[in-house]
Amino acid sequence: MAAAPVWSVDPRTGKQREQVAVEATAEEVDTTVTAAHAVRAALADRTVRAAFLRSAADGLDAARDHLVEAADAETALGPVRLTGELARTTYQLRAFAGIVDEGAFLDVIINHPDATATPPVPDLRRYKVSLGVVAVYSASNFPFAFSVAGGDTASALAAGNPVVVKAHPDHPGLSELVASVLRRAAARHGIPAGVIGLVHGFEAGLELIRHPLVAAAGFTGSVRGGRALFDAAAARPVPIPFHGELGSLNPVLVTEAAAAERGGEIGTGLAGSMTMGVGQFCVKPGLVLVPADAAGDGLLKSLTDAVSDTDAGVLLDHRMRDNFVAGVAERGGLPGVESPVTPGAGGEHTVSAGFLTVPAGRLAEEGAYDLLLEECFGPVTVVVRYADRDEATAVLSRLPGNLTATVHVSAEEAAGQGLGAEILAELTPLAGRVLVNGWPTGVAVAPAQHHGGPYPATTSTSTSVGGTAIERWLRPVAYQGVPEAMLPAELRDENPLGLPRRYDGVLER
Amino acid sequence: MAAAPVWSVDPRTGKQREQVAVEATAEEVDTTVTAAHAVRAALADRTVRAAFLRSAADGLDAARDHLVEAADAETALGPVRLTGELARTTYQLRAFAGIVDEGAFLDVIINHPDATATPPVPDLRRYKVSLGVVAVYSASNFPFAFSVAGGDTASALAAGNPVVVKAHPDHPGLSELVASVLRRAAARHGIPAGVIGLVHGFEAGLELIRHPLVAAAGFTGSVRGGRALFDAAAARPVPIPFHGELGSLNPVLVTEAAAAERGGEIGTGLAGSMTMGVGQFCVKPGLVLVPADAAGDGLLKSLTDAVSDTDAGVLLDHRMRDNFVAGVAERGGLPGVESPVTPGAGGEHTVSAGFLTVPAGRLAEEGAYDLLLEECFGPVTVVVRYADRDEATAVLSRLPGNLTATVHVSAEEAAGQGLGAEILAELTPLAGRVLVNGWPTGVAVAPAQHHGGPYPATTSTSTSVGGTAIERWLRPVAYQGVPEAMLPAELRDENPLGLPRRYDGVLER
Repeated sequence: MAAAPVWSVDPRTGKQREQVAVEATAEEVDTTVTAAHAVRAALADRTVRAAFLRSAADGLDAARDHLVEAADAETALGPVRLTGELARTTYQLRAFAGIVDEGAFLDVIINHPDATATPPVPDLRRYKVSLGVVAVYSASNFPFAFSVAGGDTASALAAGNPVVVKAHPDHPGLSELVASVLRRAAARHGIPAGVIGLVHGFEAGLELIRHPLVAAAGFTGSVRGGRALFDAAAARPVPIPFHGELGSLNPVLVTEAAAAERGGEIGTGLAGSMTMGVGQFCVKPGLVLVPADAAGDGLLKSLTDAVSDTDAGVLLDHRMRDNFVAGVAERGGLPGVESPVTPGAGGEHTVSAGFLTVPAGRLAEEGAYDLLLEECFGPVTVVVRYADRDEATAVLSRLPGNLTATVHVSAEEAAGQGLGAEILAELTPLAGRVLVNGWPTGVAVAPAQHHGGPYPATTSTSTSVGGTAIERWLRPVAYQGVPEAMLPAELRDENPLGLPRRYDGVLER
Repeated sequence: MAAAPVWSVDPRTGKQREQVAVEATAEEVDTTVTAAHAVRAALADRTVRAAFLRSAADGLDAARDHLVEAADAETALGPVRLTGELARTTYQLRAFAGIVDEGAFLDVIINHPDATATPPVPDLRRYKVSLGVVAVYSASNFPFAFSVAGGDTASALAAGNPVVVKAHPDHPGLSELVASVLRRAAARHGIPAGVIGLVHGFEAGLELIRHPLVAAAGFTGSVRGGRALFDAAAARPVPIPFHGELGSLNPVLVTEAAAAERGGEIGTGLAGSMTMGVGQFCVKPGLVLVPADAAGDGLLKSLTDAVSDTDAGVLLDHRMRDNFVAGVAERGGLPGVESPVTPGAGGEHTVSAGFLTVPAGRLAEEGAYDLLLEECFGPVTVVVRYADRDEATAVLSRLPGNLTATVHVSAEEAAGQGLGAEILAELTPLAGRVLVNGWPTGVAVAPAQHHGGPYPATTSTSTSVGGTAIERWLRPVAYQGVPEAMLPAELRDENPLGLPRRYDGVLER
């Protein structure tokens, strides 16, 4: 049987551009994973890893114009957004190089013998080691930042793990280009090319998650695809950690006082956030609770004006376009749902932004309206009009887990210790990131970031963005009674590497 | 249908002592979990939690004689061991109270806005919050330390989660007693009794893992039972973290030089470790690589002497006794396997300790001898005789994941930077704790401890013993752009609670 071709497709026309690869067979997946596994020792030295990450960033920056052009041809995300996304990606690689240098992620804890403990404590020294080969499933909507050289790859390499990437079919050509930049950077530091494997094809993705030498996986994509891979990871003879980001509604609550104070501004801000990147962000606000009063009406007026002004846009592929058109039509067809600006098909290859409204009462109980509680990828949001706080709370209590939850409050609420804190406490169980008076789109790369949340937002309690993402790819090991000469340098008393650590209960920095 | 009775059984006679409860129905599991869920707010205050943990420890200490007697009647572990285990358990509760006080586990990270980052960083503040109701599945072999008031319960409460315990059928009476001590301690601090739920019955355990309000689970037990629960946790509409400790062979490698230097001492030490607690420790050394030379023969001689001197013992229940007798017979019947001291049935209710030997070559490839690579609960170990380091390495490479891996080296090897470190590096991938010149039995409660390891040792990368066990029951949340007045005290700039934290990149302690 001939190998299935992998085509690069232009989303602006739906036409095939060129064949860039073939889908990997089971044997090819095995070869790729085995090659990655053989490279582990080359990543053992933290100095080498940090240098590799910086060279990778330099290589990507040097190839910027070429990469942005290649990405735009396959994703239609436009050169401005893509240039920014590439800068974010190289910033991220360098940030992880800094994290590798600092070494706090090793989480060194040293306990000397303590006869007063029950039972007595022997000499114990603990730190974290890499897991092995990490499988990374690329996202469609971030061809740089959540793909071949994205956060999962950067954090997995930083932790000392070789990576095998399953390319997303929406940008296979770019994936090959980026992988070759990473491999050239690796070669500069004596790291074999196997450190970055790349496979194409749906079946190859399943083979990958089932491969005995794959030790963990990261995924960014749909609930359906992610759950299938999560299930496969859990069903293995040796189950492995599967860190999947599957879907999120990203609820926003606008209080009555906030709507009264600055409803117009909030409406305009919401329009910008929900249409940004043609609504293709995982943190797009997909459900917005707005008071069913005059101030809420004012908010909707400004939302209507701003969304009406939005140009039609091209989605990442035509399947997504079809799903969007069908999804908004089905939602809009529910009795009582209105479409102040109707979302749907634009030109032959584009979609138009819009939004729907529904009374909060419709969502109080399980039923047909639950469709409105499912993510709809693309430039649409659902505005839920609530009569009072109890109605708003009832809707929030019915939501699945989210990446983000946002509240817009008035200046008085923000200053009042009681009410504001109470609202924050109500939103915290819903999400991994909680915002006040902001918009969830835009996920900063920072140590305090958390990009994850209760299922289906993520399948684990970890983050895919920010410094702590490195924790995904490590496991602790404790050494007991090991003579000094046998200890790794990281665990020696004299601390030759100057690592932050917890030493007999004292936090040393 | 009448509720199924739960009997307390005397393992020394196999006779029922008394009926202590009935198995929980699905409705009763629901009631118990719902009551636990309703108690979450009562655990929100860290000061209250710490005081509760200390009161729980005090209550258990005060009831010591009664509890030890009750435990011995159901487990036959003997008052000395059980008194020690109870002391360990209360030490552990107090240690977690200290961890709650210190607050490092909250992992506070604060980033102020930074316009120079790509993309710019807004005000972001992250810490960890509790998950919700935690299900704890008790162990048979540690009626105190890994049961109702054991490590999973202590760490889950410390993290702010109510707990529902599935009692182990080997000590249902003790489980009820301990739960009532914990509830009285809770009441002293205004925490409702629902904070410690307790259910009996196999079916109740399955209902528990499937309950929508259960947010995570901890388990200590067999591969079969643990895997079934792991699978159920993964198959839920909303999957939850399942931290299971399922089984471990705990390999020990004795180098040729070590055997030559002190083979006799090692043989005696091994006998003590493998027969301790009638071989019912999860860290019992179950596979020992000994050189096939005269020094190795000497080691086996001292092992033979010491094991022959061991009294017959009572296992935790008669099913375990039957499994042990059948398991050692099947292993001993393999061609080429010898039994210098034959393990098996002792008296009517006891078992005799023993050990088997097998040439390393038999384990080089998959086949019938793989049975020797499976844990056999009880006082038996398998001694593998190896001709050279390659043969030893070949056997180690075939092992499943382990809680511990141990090496005995000579003084010269311990002092030599090269060889000793190389052996340590070879053992590290096999286990979560690596020991040199010691025995794995005895798991200290300390911040640097790690009691976990690659599957099937554990189903996650976390630990069930030591300070970092608290991480199992937390998830991070980031707050973005939250006005000071709305922020939890833990995340305020002025640090009113004096928490260790990472503040704009600086580690503050």
